[in-house]
Amino acid sequence: MIKVGIIGGAGYTAGELLRILLNHPQAEVTFVQSSSNAGNLISDVHVDLLGETDIEFTEELPFSKVDVIFLCMGHGKSKEFMETNQLPDSLKVIDLSHDFRLKRKGNDFVYGLPELNREEIKVAKNIANPGCFATGIQLALLPLAAEGLLKNGVHIQAITGSTGAGQKPTETSHFSWRNNNLSAYKIMEHQHEGEILQSLKQLQPSFANDFNFVPIRGNHTRGIFVAAYTRFDGSEEEAKKIYQDFYNEHPFVFVSHENPGMKQVVNTNKGVIYLEKHNNKLVIISLTDNLIKGASGQAVQNMNLMFGLDERTGLNLKPVAF
Amino acid sequence: MIKVGIIGGAGYTAGELLRILLNHPQAEVTFVQSSSNAGNLISDVHVDLLGETDIEFTEELPFSKVDVIFLCMGHGKSKEFMETNQLPDSLKVIDLSHDFRLKRKGNDFVYGLPELNREEIKVAKNIANPGCFATGIQLALLPLAAEGLLKNGVHIQAITGSTGAGQKPTETSHFSWRNNNLSAYKIMEHQHEGEILQSLKQLQPSFANDFNFVPIRGNHTRGIFVAAYTRFDGSEEEAKKIYQDFYNEHPFVFVSHENPGMKQVVNTNKGVIYLEKHNNKLVIISLTDNLIKGASGQAVQNMNLMFGLDERTGLNLKPVAF
Amino acid sequence: MIKVGIIGGAGYTAGELLRILLNHPQAEVTFVQSSSNAGNLISDVHVDLLGETDIEFTEELPFSKVDVIFLCMGHGKSKEFMETNQLPDSLKVIDLSHDFRLKRKGNDFVYGLPELNREEIKVAKNIANPGCFATGIQLALLPLAAEGLLKNGVHIQAITGSTGAGQKPTETSHFSWRNNNLSAYKIMEHQHEGEILQSLKQLQPSFANDFNFVPIRGNHTRGIFVAAYTRFDGSEEEAKKIYQDFYNEHPFVFVSHENPGMKQVVNTNKGVIYLEKHNNKLVIISLTDNLIKGASGQAVQNMNLMFGLDERTGLNLKPVAF
Amino acid sequence: MIKVGIIGGAGYTAGELLRILLNHPQAEVTFVQSSSNAGNLISDVHVDLLGETDIEFTEELPFSKVDVIFLCMGHGKSKEFMETNQLPDSLKVIDLSHDFRLKRKGNDFVYGLPELNREEIKVAKNIANPGCFATGIQLALLPLAAEGLLKNGVHIQAITGSTGAGQKPTETSHFSWRNNNLSAYKIMEHQHEGEILQSLKQLQPSFANDFNFVPIRGNHTRGIFVAAYTRFDGSEEEAKKIYQDFYNEHPFVFVSHENPGMKQVVNTNKGVIYLEKHNNKLVIISLTDNLIKGASGQAVQNMNLMFGLDERTGLNLKPVAF
Repeated sequence: MIKVGIIGGAGYTAGELLRILLNHPQAEVTFVQSSSNAGNLISDVHVDLLGETDIEFTEELPFSKVDVIFLCMGHGKSKEFMETNQLPDSLKVIDLSHDFRLKRKGNDFVYGLPELNREEIKVAKNIANPGCFATGIQLALLPLAAEGLLKNGVHIQAITGSTGAGQKPTETSHFSWRNNNLSAYKIMEHQHEGEILQSLKQLQPSFANDFNFVPIRGNHTRGIFVAAYTRFDGSEEEAKKIYQDFYNEHPFVFVSHENPGMKQVVNTNKGVIYLEKHNNKLVIISLTDNLIKGASGQAVQNMNLMFGLDERTGLNLKPVAF
Repeated sequence: MIKVGIIGGAGYTAGELLRILLNHPQAEVTFVQSSSNAGNLISDVHVDLLGETDIEFTEELPFSKVDVIFLCMGHGKSKEFMETNQLPDSLKVIDLSHDFRLKRKGNDFVYGLPELNREEIKVAKNIANPGCFATGIQLALLPLAAEGLLKNGVHIQAITGSTGAGQKPTETSHFSWRNNNLSAYKIMEHQHEGEILQSLKQLQPSFANDFNFVPIRGNHTRGIFVAAYTRFDGSEEEAKKIYQDFYNEHPFVFVSHENPGMKQVVNTNKGVIYLEKHNNKLVIISLTDNLIKGASGQAVQNMNLMFGLDERTGLNLKPVAF
Repeated sequence: MIKVGIIGGAGYTAGELLRILLNHPQAEVTFVQSSSNAGNLISDVHVDLLGETDIEFTEELPFSKVDVIFLCMGHGKSKEFMETNQLPDSLKVIDLSHDFRLKRKGNDFVYGLPELNREEIKVAKNIANPGCFATGIQLALLPLAAEGLLKNGVHIQAITGSTGAGQKPTETSHFSWRNNNLSAYKIMEHQHEGEILQSLKQLQPSFANDFNFVPIRGNHTRGIFVAAYTRFDGSEEEAKKIYQDFYNEHPFVFVSHENPGMKQVVNTNKGVIYLEKHNNKLVIISLTDNLIKGASGQAVQNMNLMFGLDERTGLNLKPVAF
Repeated sequence: MIKVGIIGGAGYTAGELLRILLNHPQAEVTFVQSSSNAGNLISDVHVDLLGETDIEFTEELPFSKVDVIFLCMGHGKSKEFMETNQLPDSLKVIDLSHDFRLKRKGNDFVYGLPELNREEIKVAKNIANPGCFATGIQLALLPLAAEGLLKNGVHIQAITGSTGAGQKPTETSHFSWRNNNLSAYKIMEHQHEGEILQSLKQLQPSFANDFNFVPIRGNHTRGIFVAAYTRFDGSEEEAKKIYQDFYNEHPFVFVSHENPGMKQVVNTNKGVIYLEKHNNKLVIISLTDNLIKGASGQAVQNMNLMFGLDERTGLNLKPVAF
């Protein structure tokens, strides 16, 4: 059994981790740290866990009792955590923030997108788990980059659910405002662009293309919808073959032959890809659940790889479907 | 032209008042007070008013320039306002809080439900505008009370939209929580019970019946859905006649011969009533928009009555329908 | 391995069964019959199953190859099926329609509510799986009936999601109509009343009380919200003890000490109960997912009991939470 | 008073026309034709009109009694209607289908986008009312085209509400499917491209640019959200000036200085435009209500122009805001 600690246990991504790990056949949640909720039952915060667990949040950090910790604190906090805590050499770390996603001197975290870096993840000590938009967009583009086929401008329309913005109530997460509403934000300057471009260049070092991304706040709770397009000179069939070959050995990403709806991946760790060729453009639809494949599910997928398990262990999740 | 001042202009009910009054053919918004937003454009807070008005919020209270003020501050604040401000004798006041709804010594506010108190409203100086749940529930029960026919227990299921809880973001107004969700609150102890019972006793002084009301938070923004039932010994046709006769002279309340959906009253000042008799029970469906007939529209209806206008002036609002 | 056949495989309840059974460690889906979809991939109809299964719908009914069949056809069709097909003696049947829920001469189906009939279910050949409203309402009332404490009128407010009405598009399931809408239907005459009363009388034979139920169409996809109340002379603590004792040995029903939101049971087989005492009334909130505990999850729970498995096998489902 | 006839009165656009025209101070609905609903009360089909009108649908077509007819039948039906009916010379026609939007020999309909063709509309006999996506997208691009500034590829992300697909229930308008869902359709081949390109070329005859449009089905009922971008060499301030100057004399289109949410135009005839410059791209957000500015409101705006009224007559609609 892999012994797990969770740091920052009261937020959305920690809740999803718990929902997954409590049923994971090879993992055991040893402690869940939360400074704001220490002493409270986990099921009083993540109320759907009523009856699933009697664990309480703790302020303690018993690193020696666990094999891996997941960092689920806000962005910026993980860096601080790593600097102020002396972790045992044997302890693996999976960080869900953006603090360690970009390569730079002294950063020994492996970027944890299994469809890009599976072999490195297997032997990594520390993982920087990708962002939600970043995951959905990379799944749309990596097969082309792997073939060096990102030749011109890349255009991304991507819509996110409200859970992507976390649990702190804000004006744009107010039900009265958001219900039946749509709005753009961080236009052409979303913070996930850096990690996306880093990955595209990893596969296609020449990539320095025009990259356009207008993020949109959707009127739903879970799910990332991406419609990307770029120039592609081959046929639709050739495109499909490139994607199918690329994802053939990756158990969570599927190329659909029917035009899909976003909800079919909600509450799963899947990515669904759909392709159409029009004129000289290849249009790629990419669907993921921002909290699972875009966060906590992918974190567990990384844990599985790091500990030599089948990638899918504990991730055969029932889709919500409706 | 009726000159209008609004106190507490940044909240939901003030926004709705402005949306109505800016198109009211006989009213003119003279000032809109807001301490938190003084100096800002109204259309920067109520953004849908872009292009409709150039008025700014003010901290001033130029009472002498207006004929009527609407109090749109939080509950408790209206009482404080009336105590600390010396108002001109000629100035009429319409209070949207619950501060003056209950009769008590020294309270000279008339309870502003036109279907109950139209004649008193016409000559009132001060109006206590009813609560949203209170409006929907009273429209369901007043015709029976007027006939002295509330003989046994009264049972109310009523569901409110998120705008009923105001614009301050809270845990239960968070989109991620509320979307697709339902929950009960203030079970059997909602603060509107007092005004409802007061009105029922006004029409049927003997009323001291078992009154049961479980308020439910709905997964929608606007609208109050009420399903009430009570023992009724007559036929369904007799019930319909009682309701039709009662509402015949009230231009905003209609008895539907088809089972209605709540959304058909949204964005209007209407009440829609529907009746079915089963066994010895009369079931009454009552539909209203919590922000209009349940708040700001009714406040304008009261203003119209107080100033001798047709009740409907400025209230022929386009339903949103979808 | 339990070998399973599904009859009527294209509808919502069959889809949910498949989502559960494909991950069930002790069951194997042997065939899925659908006359309208024979020859099509299951994952082309239940599109979220892309990558989970390569099974196709069939027109065949190879009864001898399976241990149990689930009947997922429309109401009325199960009776017809049982009359026109000669089933092997050893074949167990779990029917999700209402055709066999009411006891009558010649009906050998056991009513499959484990919290009521667990021992009978364990030895049953045929099961009539309860209705969704019926499940939620019975979970709210059974503990009182078991104590003979349903003394007066019983009042039910219950709200259902759109999936309760099946997948055939209708006027009231049209998104443009239903979004942000609420409406009552089958007022005081819902078809589930019969099975509810049958169960209440099974536990409290004297029960002949005034039973009031106004079903409401909610603006959500999954979930049954029930708020029931009835006279109760004991204290809130006594009520809680009665419910906790009753559900203590039932692994899917939990008494919450916090006022819950419906969504916390969505995508699970759980029931969550919450109690408040006001004046002489006990108010009982009961939450279930209409497609799982109210249909396909309960059907699998029944299968587990019939085949000697732990009731929870394959039913540790990840809640969707948001 | 302008006397109005509506052909095809039972659908969504006819309902919206009625909601607007019943309160229009200078128009009078003389007849509403519907073959499927002849003899039924209008308020039994458009149920929110309960109490607003006692008109019944008719099968008659008393052309001589009206000054203008609105064609609200399905696409293809308007052409048939014009061919089979002999209309009085003085009768004006406003067609809401796409049948006459594209210029071709013998088509004497003026394309009814007032922001493009106001002077032609004023003297037109027949109007082809623009499509909903087409309206939102043209409002985003016309000011650039008017300056000849569409120099490179044009990229459109646009999301529509469910009412855009009409009232016939379909799989993708089923609440259970559509709620919380997103999907692309008619990728790069939406039928509105023709009218958009026609208008862009009208203003910038050289326009033959790469035009990219992936339409998305949104999880809301009303509203078109457009985020468009194209290369622009000037500054953000220069862009804002171009747009403000262009829309200065058009009373329904406003340039917002704050990043807007789509819902702020819902239930109004407004267009709201917002601009940001990033790198060498100008990003244009354009918001409209698909049923009003994108259909029936614009049709009334055209009627106002054709009959010499102020464009805004009857179109000061209360926004729903929430």
